[in-house]
Amino acid sequence: MGLQYEEQFTIPFALTDVKQEIIISQFLSYCLGLSGRQSESLGRGDLDVFEHYGLVWVVTDYELNIFRLPTYNETVRIVTEAVSYNKFFCYRMFYVYDQVGNLLMDILSYFVLIDFKDRKVVPVPDDLIAPYQSEKVKKIQRAPRYHVLENPDSKDYRIRYFDIDMNGHVNNSKYLEWMYDALDYEFLLNHRPNHIQLKYVKEVSPGGMISSKVELHDGNSQHEIWSDGSVHAQAIIKWEKRDGQ
Amino acid sequence: MGLQYEEQFTIPFALTDVKQEIIISQFLSYCLGLSGRQSESLGRGDLDVFEHYGLVWVVTDYELNIFRLPTYNETVRIVTEAVSYNKFFCYRMFYVYDQVGNLLMDILSYFVLIDFKDRKVVPVPDDLIAPYQSEKVKKIQRAPRYHVLENPDSKDYRIRYFDIDMNGHVNNSKYLEWMYDALDYEFLLNHRPNHIQLKYVKEVSPGGMISSKVELHDGNSQHEIWSDGSVHAQAIIKWEKRDGQ
Repeated sequence: MGLQYEEQFTIPFALTDVKQEIIISQFLSYCLGLSGRQSESLGRGDLDVFEHYGLVWVVTDYELNIFRLPTYNETVRIVTEAVSYNKFFCYRMFYVYDQVGNLLMDILSYFVLIDFKDRKVVPVPDDLIAPYQSEKVKKIQRAPRYHVLENPDSKDYRIRYFDIDMNGHVNNSKYLEWMYDALDYEFLLNHRPNHIQLKYVKEVSPGGMISSKVELHDGNSQHEIWSDGSVHAQAIIKWEKRDGQ
Repeated sequence: MGLQYEEQFTIPFALTDVKQEIIISQFLSYCLGLSGRQSESLGRGDLDVFEHYGLVWVVTDYELNIFRLPTYNETVRIVTEAVSYNKFFCYRMFYVYDQVGNLLMDILSYFVLIDFKDRKVVPVPDDLIAPYQSEKVKKIQRAPRYHVLENPDSKDYRIRYFDIDMNGHVNNSKYLEWMYDALDYEFLLNHRPNHIQLKYVKEVSPGGMISSKVELHDGNSQHEIWSDGSVHAQAIIKWEKRDGQ
């Protein structure tokens, strides 16, 4: 078990969708910011990691279990913990609770460290990770696999100015937005996700187009984001019908 | 002078662009949330206004003076005040200061109250506005005018699922994003806005397309958002070259 860190958070209007529920892609960004604040409190802020090690954290995968999505103006308690790590991967959990202690969501995130200069993944330095009190494990917990889409529907998106973040690439939160948007508006209104797995494969550069491809089978949607002839992100979302619909 | 209300705010990653500066459209949403917290502290939250009066606040115009844009991780002090009102319009200011007290931006916003049922503008009830201690004025401060674009460049945008907010229409913040995006990427990298005036004319419904039209003359860009054959928003942005470019 690692050190836990927690904050309260009241869901603002800008983080909610037409159903008054949090926009998951943006909530993931918020959670990253929160884990950044834990890191700073431990002397391991992004700037420290960059200046002392020349390294940058990168998220490769997420797995979410969603029991209920937080809604507009609801105050939730978010608990995070860098649970364990092995040679290359660090595993961090986020738990989102309502005000009476019900678990609304849990989020498993996979992090790696890359060398800023050559962008290659490097082994996790023990002293960098020490303050988190994460357990060192030998076993590599593999992220879920994805099969290749065979006959997907596809929508094209021009990459926009505000899709690009200060790293000079498309911000991670955009992928999941493109994935959602490839589904029908009516389907999205009438279903809620209860499980999401998401893999970031490769960064997308400014300019040009992306394609958001999707296949929907038995209430599960599988997604691929294509750019320049290759897959840049993948996801599988399990949906259930909303009550009374 | 009205009652002042203020908060500190540390700019999160998700609210910044490729230049590490705040995304103004999203910052305006944040400021609206902040004024909502003042209203709640005065017993005039959106829900109170809706339940007791059947009314909803709508922003019609913004005017921004921008001396420097706040940047990633910077903590700013935001002060807001419902300055004055007349029969139909309420005028609210936001002032954004850095940590040593320099004014970074000021934002004048125009609000009206609409009847929830027939969506028509109604006179401002004195007792609704009383807790803000705004000055009642006879003069109507007119929002800036716009001339019609004659030979604009145009980009088309499909309205996306996450463009729609819980009011069932495109969220206000999207208009300014579409306006920016109609400009060249290189232009945006090399210029900064020092004045923005923005008018919301009409809501945009889910589904369909919008066109973002722009003319650029002498460092000023003028914008129109078109949907279904009519103008839904207009803006004029004054730009200056960035230092060293």
